[in-house]
Amino acid sequence: MDNGLNNSRKDFPILDQTVNDEPLVYLDNAATTQKPNQVLQEIMRYYQNDNANVHRGVHTLAERATTSYEAARDKVAAFINAPSRKCVVYTRSTTEGLNWVASSFGNLVVNEGDEIVISELEHHSNIVPWQQVAAKQHATLKYIPLTADGELDMVSARQLITDQTKIVSIAQAANVMGVVNQIKELAQLAHQHGAYMIADGAQAAPHMRVDVQDLDVDFYAFSGHKMLAPTGIGALYGKEDLLEKMPPAQFGGEMIDFVHHQSASWKELPWKFEAGTPNISGAIALGSAIDYLNQLGMANIEAYEQDLVDYTLPKLLEIEGLTVYGPHDPAKHTGVMAFNLDNLHPHDVATGLDMEGIAVRAGHHCAQPLMEYLDVSATARASFYFYNTKAEADRLVNAIEAVKEFFNHGTV
Amino acid sequence: MDNGLNNSRKDFPILDQTVNDEPLVYLDNAATTQKPNQVLQEIMRYYQNDNANVHRGVHTLAERATTSYEAARDKVAAFINAPSRKCVVYTRSTTEGLNWVASSFGNLVVNEGDEIVISELEHHSNIVPWQQVAAKQHATLKYIPLTADGELDMVSARQLITDQTKIVSIAQAANVMGVVNQIKELAQLAHQHGAYMIADGAQAAPHMRVDVQDLDVDFYAFSGHKMLAPTGIGALYGKEDLLEKMPPAQFGGEMIDFVHHQSASWKELPWKFEAGTPNISGAIALGSAIDYLNQLGMANIEAYEQDLVDYTLPKLLEIEGLTVYGPHDPAKHTGVMAFNLDNLHPHDVATGLDMEGIAVRAGHHCAQPLMEYLDVSATARASFYFYNTKAEADRLVNAIEAVKEFFNHGTV
Repeated sequence: MDNGLNNSRKDFPILDQTVNDEPLVYLDNAATTQKPNQVLQEIMRYYQNDNANVHRGVHTLAERATTSYEAARDKVAAFINAPSRKCVVYTRSTTEGLNWVASSFGNLVVNEGDEIVISELEHHSNIVPWQQVAAKQHATLKYIPLTADGELDMVSARQLITDQTKIVSIAQAANVMGVVNQIKELAQLAHQHGAYMIADGAQAAPHMRVDVQDLDVDFYAFSGHKMLAPTGIGALYGKEDLLEKMPPAQFGGEMIDFVHHQSASWKELPWKFEAGTPNISGAIALGSAIDYLNQLGMANIEAYEQDLVDYTLPKLLEIEGLTVYGPHDPAKHTGVMAFNLDNLHPHDVATGLDMEGIAVRAGHHCAQPLMEYLDVSATARASFYFYNTKAEADRLVNAIEAVKEFFNHGTV
Repeated sequence: MDNGLNNSRKDFPILDQTVNDEPLVYLDNAATTQKPNQVLQEIMRYYQNDNANVHRGVHTLAERATTSYEAARDKVAAFINAPSRKCVVYTRSTTEGLNWVASSFGNLVVNEGDEIVISELEHHSNIVPWQQVAAKQHATLKYIPLTADGELDMVSARQLITDQTKIVSIAQAANVMGVVNQIKELAQLAHQHGAYMIADGAQAAPHMRVDVQDLDVDFYAFSGHKMLAPTGIGALYGKEDLLEKMPPAQFGGEMIDFVHHQSASWKELPWKFEAGTPNISGAIALGSAIDYLNQLGMANIEAYEQDLVDYTLPKLLEIEGLTVYGPHDPAKHTGVMAFNLDNLHPHDVATGLDMEGIAVRAGHHCAQPLMEYLDVSATARASFYFYNTKAEADRLVNAIEAVKEFFNHGTV
C-alpha cells in the first residue's frame, strides 16, 4: 500500500477527510501545501513555551525566541547552500522577495534604455514588479518565448540577453507549464553580459535540491507555505555584496542601527531588511519544515514525484479531448500538470472534480500573459507533492473521465 | 485570588512555567503578548481541516479558507468600527502598515517645502519612514515636544501644525512614555489645515476601544501579535477614497485584476494591497483573537489595566532611586511603565529581574530620539496586559528592590 513517500501521509491529518462524501485527494500543492504534525507541533511548542519578541530582550523567553528564530535562518541557509546566513532575509513570501529585489535593487541598477528579460511562463509576481521598474526607469521589458513543448526557447534567450540587459528574472520551476528552467545556464548568460540573474524559486525549492552557489544566481526568492511551513513566511537569498548595496524596502523596528531626529542608519545583514516585528513563529516553523524535508531527503522527494509523473502523465495524455500543457515526455515534466477538456470551462472541470473529492485549481494561475500566449482563458491544474499517491492519480484520471462524461452526456 | 481579568490566565499555558526557578511574571506585553489556547486551537483547526490558498480556488478547501480569511477581515473592521471591510487591508505588522502609508500615500501627497509632523515619543517605525519621505520630497520633518509630564505638548502642536503641514502621524498610545495621545484633537487640527492624520495604533488597539470613525483618522495601523494573535499579521485601516488614490506597495498574486505583457491593473479594495499569498492562518487567528478580546470586552480590559496601574505606579514611585518616565498620576498612565534605577544600567536591571523570573525589556525600545530627548541611553520597561495580576505587580516591586540591593551591596 502506497502511503506517500516514506509513509508520510500519516503526518498530515488534513488529508484524512472526506469532501462531498469522497475521500479528499489534495492536488493543489502548487498553490499551497499541507502542514505535517511536526510543523504544527513546533508552532504550538513555541507559543506554549517560548513566545517573546526577538533581538531586543534580555529576559529568558526573549533569548529563547531569538535563538530559535536565528537557528531557523541557519536551516534556511543550509537548505539552499547559501554561503552565509547573512545572505538569507526573511520575507512574507516569494512575491515580497521579488518585489523587494525589483523595487530596491532593480531601481538601483536599471537605467534608461536598459532591458529586463523575463519569460512567457512567469507568474505575475515575477512580471508586474519588473513592469513597474521598466516604467519608472524607462527601460524595456522583454519576454523569452517558449518552444512548442512549453520549455524556454534557449536559442531566443541567447539572442534576447545582450549587453543592454541589466536583469534576467526567471522561475526555476514553472507554475503552469510543468517545466524546470535552466537557471544555471541563464545565470552564465546574464553574467557574460554584465546582467544580474534572479530566480523565482516558489515552485522549485519545495521539490528539488537547490544550490544557489552552483546556480550562481544573484537573488533567489521562495515561500514557506509551498513547502510545509505556514503562510506569511518566506526567504530571499541574495549575494552578500548585492544585499549590501541594496537599500531596505521597509524601515523601523528590528532593522535599525541608530535613529537621529533627521536621519537613521541600518543594522548589518541580514537584519537590515527585517523591519518591524518579523513573523517569528513562521520563521521557526519554516525551520521545522526544512527539518522534515531533510529527513525525507530532497533527492528522494524529487525521485518520488518523478515516479508519480511517469505514472500519471501518460494516463492523462490518453484521455480523449484532454489537452495537457507543457512537455509530454514525463522526464521533462514536473508534478504540476495543467490541462483543459475540450468544450468545457476549466472552472466547470474543477467543480466537477471537487464533487468527486478531488481538489485541483482552475483559472489563470497568476500567469495571464502565458494564458494569452497559449490562447486560452484559463486551465485546470493538478499539482502533486510527496504525500500524494498513484492511487490518487488514478482517482484523478477516472474523475476527469467521469466529468467529461457528465458534461457531454449528463450522466456519471 | 486574582487570576487576571475574568480568570483569563488559565487560557495562557505559557504563563504557567518557572524561569530561573521562579514562577514566570511576563511583563513584556508592549513587545508582544502571549496567545490564548483559543487562538492556538484555531490555528490548529485551520491547518488540520481547511488549509488551502485563498480566492483563486473553486475546490471545497479553498472556499472554506477564503470564507474564514474574509470573515476575519469583517471582525477586524468591526473591532475598530471601520465603515466598510474595503477599508481594512491585512499587513505583516504596524511597521509595514506605516511604511506603506509613507511610501505610497506620503510620497503621493507630500511635495517640496511641505511639512510632516510627528512627535518626540514616536517608535522608529513612525519616524524613519517619514524621514525617507522628507528626504525624497525635500520636505521637512518636525517633532511635537513633550510636556514635563511626558505628554504631547498640545500648545506646541497647535503651533507646529500649519497650512504647510501635509501629514501628522502620531502614536495613539506611547510605547515608552505610557501616555495616550489626543488623536481626535490632532486629527481635527490636521484637517483644519488640509493635512492627513495617521495614527500608530500598535500600543492602543490591544488595550482600549478604538473607533476610527470617531477619531476621524485617515489611516490607522496596528499589529496582531500585540493583541493575542500570532506574529506576521497586522492591519491597516484607511479611508476608502484615500486607499483608492494610494498606489499598491507590492505587486503580483492576489492583488492583480489583469496583466498584459507591458501593463497591469489592480483588483478593487481591499485586495489591491494584498500581493502574493497572504498570511492566511495569521489573519484567521487574528479574527479569533478579536473574538477573545470582545468576549472579555475592551472596556473591561481598559478598566482592569487601569486598576493595575493605579495599584502599581504609586508603589514604583515610592522606590528610592527609581525614576519612572511619563506622568506620575496613574489616571494619565497606561500599563507601559518605563523606569531606571540610579547608577544601574537598565540591561543589568532587566537581567537581575530575569533572575527573579520577571520578564521586562531593557533598551531604547525603538525610540532613540525619545532617549535623546530624555537624555538617557536606555530604560527598563514593564508592560502589563489583562492576564497580569496585582500579585505580579508586587513581585515586580519587590524584585526591583532586591536588584537594587544586590547591585548596591552585593547581596539579595
